[in-house]
Amino acid sequence: MGSEELLGYLEDCRVLALQEIQRIIPAEQREASPLYALMLDYPLREAKGLRPALCIATCRALGGKLDAVVRSAAVLELFHNAFLIHDDIEDGSLMRRGGPTLHRTHGLPIAVNVGDAMLALALQPLLDNVAVLGLGPALRILQAVARMTRESVEGQSLELEWIRGGVLDVTDDDYVRMVEQKTAWYSFITPVIVGAITARAPQERIDALSAFARSLGIAFQIQDDVLNLRGQESDYGKEIAGDLWEGKRTLMLLHMLRGASGPERQEVARILRLPRPDEPGTESPSRPVSGLGALLSELVEEGALTPRGETRLREALWTHGSRGPVKTEADVRLLLSLIERQGSLEHAQGVARKWAEDAEQRLAACHAWLPESAHRRLLDSLVAYVLARVR
Amino acid sequence: MGSEELLGYLEDCRVLALQEIQRIIPAEQREASPLYALMLDYPLREAKGLRPALCIATCRALGGKLDAVVRSAAVLELFHNAFLIHDDIEDGSLMRRGGPTLHRTHGLPIAVNVGDAMLALALQPLLDNVAVLGLGPALRILQAVARMTRESVEGQSLELEWIRGGVLDVTDDDYVRMVEQKTAWYSFITPVIVGAITARAPQERIDALSAFARSLGIAFQIQDDVLNLRGQESDYGKEIAGDLWEGKRTLMLLHMLRGASGPERQEVARILRLPRPDEPGTESPSRPVSGLGALLSELVEEGALTPRGETRLREALWTHGSRGPVKTEADVRLLLSLIERQGSLEHAQGVARKWAEDAEQRLAACHAWLPESAHRRLLDSLVAYVLARVR
Repeated sequence: MGSEELLGYLEDCRVLALQEIQRIIPAEQREASPLYALMLDYPLREAKGLRPALCIATCRALGGKLDAVVRSAAVLELFHNAFLIHDDIEDGSLMRRGGPTLHRTHGLPIAVNVGDAMLALALQPLLDNVAVLGLGPALRILQAVARMTRESVEGQSLELEWIRGGVLDVTDDDYVRMVEQKTAWYSFITPVIVGAITARAPQERIDALSAFARSLGIAFQIQDDVLNLRGQESDYGKEIAGDLWEGKRTLMLLHMLRGASGPERQEVARILRLPRPDEPGTESPSRPVSGLGALLSELVEEGALTPRGETRLREALWTHGSRGPVKTEADVRLLLSLIERQGSLEHAQGVARKWAEDAEQRLAACHAWLPESAHRRLLDSLVAYVLARVR
Repeated sequence: MGSEELLGYLEDCRVLALQEIQRIIPAEQREASPLYALMLDYPLREAKGLRPALCIATCRALGGKLDAVVRSAAVLELFHNAFLIHDDIEDGSLMRRGGPTLHRTHGLPIAVNVGDAMLALALQPLLDNVAVLGLGPALRILQAVARMTRESVEGQSLELEWIRGGVLDVTDDDYVRMVEQKTAWYSFITPVIVGAITARAPQERIDALSAFARSLGIAFQIQDDVLNLRGQESDYGKEIAGDLWEGKRTLMLLHMLRGASGPERQEVARILRLPRPDEPGTESPSRPVSGLGALLSELVEEGALTPRGETRLREALWTHGSRGPVKTEADVRLLLSLIERQGSLEHAQGVARKWAEDAEQRLAACHAWLPESAHRRLLDSLVAYVLARVR
């Protein structure tokens, strides 16, 4: 499959999933209620359509029908977008898919509730599967989704605890386990499992495809981390080096830490402990803009504060809010330069390559019973896509 | 049922639900992972056990078995606690069941994820119902839970939009619709529906009990709002007048606004628009403690700031952080005094009485086919409990 055919397949699946999401969240409700309107905010932004494509392609490659799988594919996309809203809050992310994150534009309380609402709405279409697919497959899909959500929150918890606890001695294996839970389960493994269940594949074939999806998902996430440090904001859609601002324990950071000198390690630990600064002027009910400026001017006018003192206080308020010290551009640049000097990006790409090659072999082994088709080619192309970037 | 028998029944159900929750979140996992340990934080705090009691009592009053219903009752309690964690974040609440809210002790990111984790874990036991109750009842319970979560997020959205939009012209009917969705659906209606489905009650009896639960739930919530303004922190478990600090549109506030003079209305609108101040020293990664104190001392030492100027700045930083103006004690006292002067508490209690009397009549109409038992007495006693407080 050429890259044009790949992009076309992804886009078709994205549109199909979006149409189904618009049936789950109907137009009348979106017009009547801001809650329903906001549930479409992230899904309507430019995205790759990877999860619905994996789900649909797996089902159809196994001989299943598009009609049978499209509802479940849309539900997985709905889960994905709900997780994104909550993840963006938890990570303090500023940008998502080329626009500001939902909690920045609508405030934290509403963003938490919109994520919950999307999780709430995802259940009914899965129950409707009983009438369409029959009881057995419908229940197995519900089980798969229950497992998926459990794995996702466990992975998210691991990462949050590392950041909050200032944990530095994370091994590459720990990292792989974390991204398997946090990302691979809901973005790769479950879409493939749900597609295969819908096509009524026997359990050993579901297991083989699920193992392929796991390896592909791990490779993808590592490559995504690399892109976060290397990409351009315009074509990446998130912020550049957002992972460093957020203190994420990526393979690059972990590799750099293992090769760093004692004093470097201390400095990196100090930087990672610092919170990121707020965007000045971020409109959010949980953190409105400073009202101290007027008081400072007043004190200067009264002669209670020197102009130089005012400048220093304004600088401190601007960078710090009323908070303690925060990460600076210079801090993040230091992390980046250490990562580059240690060859940590190359190390991470090497690990990604191993997982992508593992995915390639596992998928090739499935070819015995997975006949050639446009749908199987989509799976092959995704592997080739990652391999081309990590070789 | 005397008040001792009532409390005993509630406590028994609370313990049963908690034991079941501890099976859903097993000890090994709680020891291995902070995520699982934190899921038990709210459930282990002192609580009334109202939802499991309603669910179990309805099931058993209809001749259903305890074994058949206890898993679903626990799941409803799990949902309730997950909603509480997210609601506390969305409302900026400080206290819950006599202790600080989860996001204050563990930070916002972890609290959002723990709530998600509890929602995630609630699905599997409902799927296990298929083996225990058979397919029909298990699917109907899943449908009821899907409806419940949708109603809850819609109700929560209504309230958040009122607060965020500074909406004042909310009628008593609007308020009742909001609490029906936000509170009655998950705390009263769904426990009763799930209990009745488990006992295999026919649809018209489920509907009759569900209408009773709706009226009781609305009466309870209004009475809870009244208690929020009147109660003592020690026996209420939340903060006193927390609803006023949070800007909640309660029946009392709405009644007071309707009777207020033009200037009073303007002043109330101004106060309601203000955010609540942060707790000083709240340990949260999203809002760490000020680091500006040292800079202020330095400026005084250098003679760049007068001691009087320092005091004023410290006061401003203490009350405001780097935020704009916030509600003060005096603001909240003013709201309270206007509410008391207008007789708004009495108005709200009058509305609660109407709903409680409606619940009483609806339950009495069910007595024709709901034979006398300890379980039916629990339902009767809950009605009597509210009536005694609003008459």
